[in-house]
Amino acid sequence: MFEVRTDLALEVRELYQEEKQQEIPGVAVEQENTGDVNITRVEILDQHGAQVMGKVKGKYITLECVGLRRPNADLKDEVSKLLAKELKSLAEMNKPMKVLVVGLGNEHVTPDALGPKVVSKLFVTRHLFQFYNKDSDEDLAELSAISPGVMGTTGIETGEIIRGIVENIKPHLVVAVDALASRKMERVNTTIQLSNTGINPGSGVGNKRKALNEETLGIPVIAVGVPTVVDAATLTNDTIQLVIKAFSKQVKVGSQFYNMLNELKNEEKYHMIKEVLEPYSANVMVTPKEVDDIILHLSHIIANAINIALHPGIDLQDVNRYLH
Amino acid sequence: MFEVRTDLALEVRELYQEEKQQEIPGVAVEQENTGDVNITRVEILDQHGAQVMGKVKGKYITLECVGLRRPNADLKDEVSKLLAKELKSLAEMNKPMKVLVVGLGNEHVTPDALGPKVVSKLFVTRHLFQFYNKDSDEDLAELSAISPGVMGTTGIETGEIIRGIVENIKPHLVVAVDALASRKMERVNTTIQLSNTGINPGSGVGNKRKALNEETLGIPVIAVGVPTVVDAATLTNDTIQLVIKAFSKQVKVGSQFYNMLNELKNEEKYHMIKEVLEPYSANVMVTPKEVDDIILHLSHIIANAINIALHPGIDLQDVNRYLH
Amino acid sequence: MFEVRTDLALEVRELYQEEKQQEIPGVAVEQENTGDVNITRVEILDQHGAQVMGKVKGKYITLECVGLRRPNADLKDEVSKLLAKELKSLAEMNKPMKVLVVGLGNEHVTPDALGPKVVSKLFVTRHLFQFYNKDSDEDLAELSAISPGVMGTTGIETGEIIRGIVENIKPHLVVAVDALASRKMERVNTTIQLSNTGINPGSGVGNKRKALNEETLGIPVIAVGVPTVVDAATLTNDTIQLVIKAFSKQVKVGSQFYNMLNELKNEEKYHMIKEVLEPYSANVMVTPKEVDDIILHLSHIIANAINIALHPGIDLQDVNRYLH
Amino acid sequence: MFEVRTDLALEVRELYQEEKQQEIPGVAVEQENTGDVNITRVEILDQHGAQVMGKVKGKYITLECVGLRRPNADLKDEVSKLLAKELKSLAEMNKPMKVLVVGLGNEHVTPDALGPKVVSKLFVTRHLFQFYNKDSDEDLAELSAISPGVMGTTGIETGEIIRGIVENIKPHLVVAVDALASRKMERVNTTIQLSNTGINPGSGVGNKRKALNEETLGIPVIAVGVPTVVDAATLTNDTIQLVIKAFSKQVKVGSQFYNMLNELKNEEKYHMIKEVLEPYSANVMVTPKEVDDIILHLSHIIANAINIALHPGIDLQDVNRYLH
Repeated sequence: MFEVRTDLALEVRELYQEEKQQEIPGVAVEQENTGDVNITRVEILDQHGAQVMGKVKGKYITLECVGLRRPNADLKDEVSKLLAKELKSLAEMNKPMKVLVVGLGNEHVTPDALGPKVVSKLFVTRHLFQFYNKDSDEDLAELSAISPGVMGTTGIETGEIIRGIVENIKPHLVVAVDALASRKMERVNTTIQLSNTGINPGSGVGNKRKALNEETLGIPVIAVGVPTVVDAATLTNDTIQLVIKAFSKQVKVGSQFYNMLNELKNEEKYHMIKEVLEPYSANVMVTPKEVDDIILHLSHIIANAINIALHPGIDLQDVNRYLH
Repeated sequence: MFEVRTDLALEVRELYQEEKQQEIPGVAVEQENTGDVNITRVEILDQHGAQVMGKVKGKYITLECVGLRRPNADLKDEVSKLLAKELKSLAEMNKPMKVLVVGLGNEHVTPDALGPKVVSKLFVTRHLFQFYNKDSDEDLAELSAISPGVMGTTGIETGEIIRGIVENIKPHLVVAVDALASRKMERVNTTIQLSNTGINPGSGVGNKRKALNEETLGIPVIAVGVPTVVDAATLTNDTIQLVIKAFSKQVKVGSQFYNMLNELKNEEKYHMIKEVLEPYSANVMVTPKEVDDIILHLSHIIANAINIALHPGIDLQDVNRYLH
Repeated sequence: MFEVRTDLALEVRELYQEEKQQEIPGVAVEQENTGDVNITRVEILDQHGAQVMGKVKGKYITLECVGLRRPNADLKDEVSKLLAKELKSLAEMNKPMKVLVVGLGNEHVTPDALGPKVVSKLFVTRHLFQFYNKDSDEDLAELSAISPGVMGTTGIETGEIIRGIVENIKPHLVVAVDALASRKMERVNTTIQLSNTGINPGSGVGNKRKALNEETLGIPVIAVGVPTVVDAATLTNDTIQLVIKAFSKQVKVGSQFYNMLNELKNEEKYHMIKEVLEPYSANVMVTPKEVDDIILHLSHIIANAINIALHPGIDLQDVNRYLH
Repeated sequence: MFEVRTDLALEVRELYQEEKQQEIPGVAVEQENTGDVNITRVEILDQHGAQVMGKVKGKYITLECVGLRRPNADLKDEVSKLLAKELKSLAEMNKPMKVLVVGLGNEHVTPDALGPKVVSKLFVTRHLFQFYNKDSDEDLAELSAISPGVMGTTGIETGEIIRGIVENIKPHLVVAVDALASRKMERVNTTIQLSNTGINPGSGVGNKRKALNEETLGIPVIAVGVPTVVDAATLTNDTIQLVIKAFSKQVKVGSQFYNMLNELKNEEKYHMIKEVLEPYSANVMVTPKEVDDIILHLSHIIANAINIALHPGIDLQDVNRYLH
């Protein structure tokens, strides 16, 4: 069966609210608006909240900024700074740390290339610490980064690759950057989600099973994700939902037609989606045409945020002027 | 308003037949099946046919081969040969000719890059004819090729660029290769359309207004196109259509609900599509995830077909072994 | 025979001065230093100067800035502004003009991709003028741009392609951007040459014969070029020269060995270069390893300069913030 | 000081022979010619041989084929088969094995991208073995593959990354593919070297310190390398050598000039090289212009060889027809 597919905690909560008209018990929500950017901090506090949300306990922070769809360097800088601030607070960084950034996804499939593109723009320093035989520095974190590729081209679960590296280089923290799927076109490329729960099975555009989290790696894992596609099954499903809703308004509860509408929500809906999407069904994505530019733009914002959040002595001006 | 969008003559005819249960007057159709490949030759014979089809008078040949979705070098070679044969007959080539191939589309947007990728794989010879001061050759056509880019990056209509080049190098024939949009996912990357009518306004994935045809260039123009995307408005529209059809089966003609269904075909449908696709609406495309590989694969097939159709002394083995 | 190969007027003059210890008659030279950037304005005034320089009459302006080798956004902006100023004065622009920018070179060969990369970053407007049916605008020039590709993939001389387009869209001015070859590694990617003489046969990295100049196009042509490679024959030739010079210092004029050294300058030198470079000889280039980044960097500087020089209402801040 | 730089055992031996006119003691050499391909098997047998060669004990097999410079599918297939045969014998494969292929080098620097490009063309299977819970298969090896990136972008030594992965997925064998530097242009892209000694410090185009060998990984490591560049210091050094040799022929031993020639071999030579290559000196490479195509071509040959050498049930026809 096709399920509604979203990687955003924000969207799960939204769906719940639409249906139940109340907040989810066991989930705390906090909102902030800076003018250009909406920040929503969702915390899943207990097992009940986790079950309802279909997500593990922990913090999920979302930055939404519709302006990101157009090139605007001031807005880009503003979002980088806000993101850096949230990242710092989530990472509980008090002093320069050893951090490994993992760029998930397939560099050769544009909407899935966000992670590798972020990695290519980071100011990595670990080799310099090794070369000068330093253990810490006031201005710089010991930063390393890798894009391990996807299972289809490596034959290896990403989790296995990263576990091996973590065991060898012993960072304090992993930051995993990934492209996500959203339920709504309007969120595509306008929303950045941070979470201290790591990456958990089933997430992401590509084939990235198995977890990257504190349980599997032994150190905290912060996930940074941006929805870059809506999958086509979600899109058609949403269309069907809308058609049914349009009819429902005009139909009496209990009438024969009312029952018909409800039945449709099940098997036939699945067949219609299948019919429209065949023969690629599971492998079709919906994406803005200018996706190449957008991914580049977003990877700058996220790389900048990581660079300034992790390295105490580097600010946004340094990044814009001397890096890249 | 969103219209059903297709560049394939085949699909227009199909839609007509579904609705009217008859062939379009003024349109001749011929079909051939080679086992792996379905060839449909549609000829629009008169003004009435042209009006109903919404396409200009002329021949439209479609090769359909579902096997093209997987890498299979034998099938690839078979399709190249069949395509070369149709191209030769459509071009009415009796002797080596001077031909300009135009690769339409934006090389940097994967599903729109088909034309430029074909151009990069052609065995161009015009400069050799010039260098050796030859006017003709038994084995080789005088082949030139250009990818003019799209209006958004050049500021110039493709038609204006090509007209200028045609006036200067005076070929006998233009072959224009372009990525198309289809109504059905199942046609994406499995269908190749040839036509002797050139490229006419409104066609194509990108922004390629103004015609490339015998009227504007003064020489025959053969168009070669492959649908590489379904646009998202078409996809949602088709889903709505299916939902309505599902209901229609169970509803009495003339009943209140029957009328409701028909009304929905108009304004509300438009609003639903808009709601699902906002805010990118016109700029969202639906495409298989592995689109990079598929475009590469198809560009080989078409370039091979052009190479062997135009150069009398070159066969598929030469192309596979010594070119690219 | 291998000749010393350079596209820079500056280098020709330098070679002359080294040998003759005087300025070339018929050539005026003016120098300016802004701190970071050296500007040299060479004007070939008459036929004698043209003959000695091996270049046509006209103005050649060179901006040299060794800092360009490292990413430095402030310096980048400074060079863009200086370049824009020189470009404006060379173009004798008093009012918004119709300008066609031509990106020469092969986009798929990194050191030759400068021209196409500049074109992809321009703010083209001609289609907007057409769409709104305007003939002029206070803030914007009517800018169009094309990357015609190289003769090896098109089969057409670049000159023929551009002539056709110029005849159709009738600009007032062509600006042609190209990658050049230098004699010295130290000039690679640190030097930008402007000239009002257009592109003349034999120039450039790739195979771009035939002129783009006022004579062939009927309108002024400004050439913008950056040396991105030293060709390997030049490099080995320069090495041989150095070895000979080292010996010469210690050898008596007229001695047997002195004669040997002089003889070597001819045939044997050619054989040695051939031996070292075989079997690729003519097709080998010498380039810094980080050439990809450098070309990207330079294409930004030049595109920015063109954008602000041509569009009166656009300044560098607009370009940095809202374009690209 | 600039040293003669080569990664090819073949070239070290050649240099020794030129100077000493004899084979190196402790080194066995075997040659085979198949018509199109020269195979040289050099075995360093003892510590003396190792010291003279400047390479560790073990087998070094070189396939040379000048025809590889032009596209020729038959020759390509022949080289793939010969390479597969040597690889199989070097790996001492009697049964399907667990193999990890490592693609060294920077995917974004063309001449250094060989390893990553080979990895992208392999038929990896490890995830399928895991999914179906199989430990072995008659037709397929358990193949995994990774391109770890270079230290400049990861901050991690390649050796550390691979060690971590090897510990986790426990293969029997590592095959490391890398771009090399040659002393001679004629070897560039025509020579493939196999060795059972792994990768040892100082090798390669990029910054890939620290070993990948049996000592560091605990399992055998086969290295596959192709010279894709000559470094510029080598090229200029070779030119100087040639000039000196040309003079030497005409000069009496013991004469003043003879001594001058010998002195030049030292300090002044270094200054001349520095003068010609400044300011990029260490970071300049010499490469054929069509390097993009050549790397693609070579990566096919090597990927095909690995695919057919490791998977007992896959032959070259399968690879050509159904993979890639």
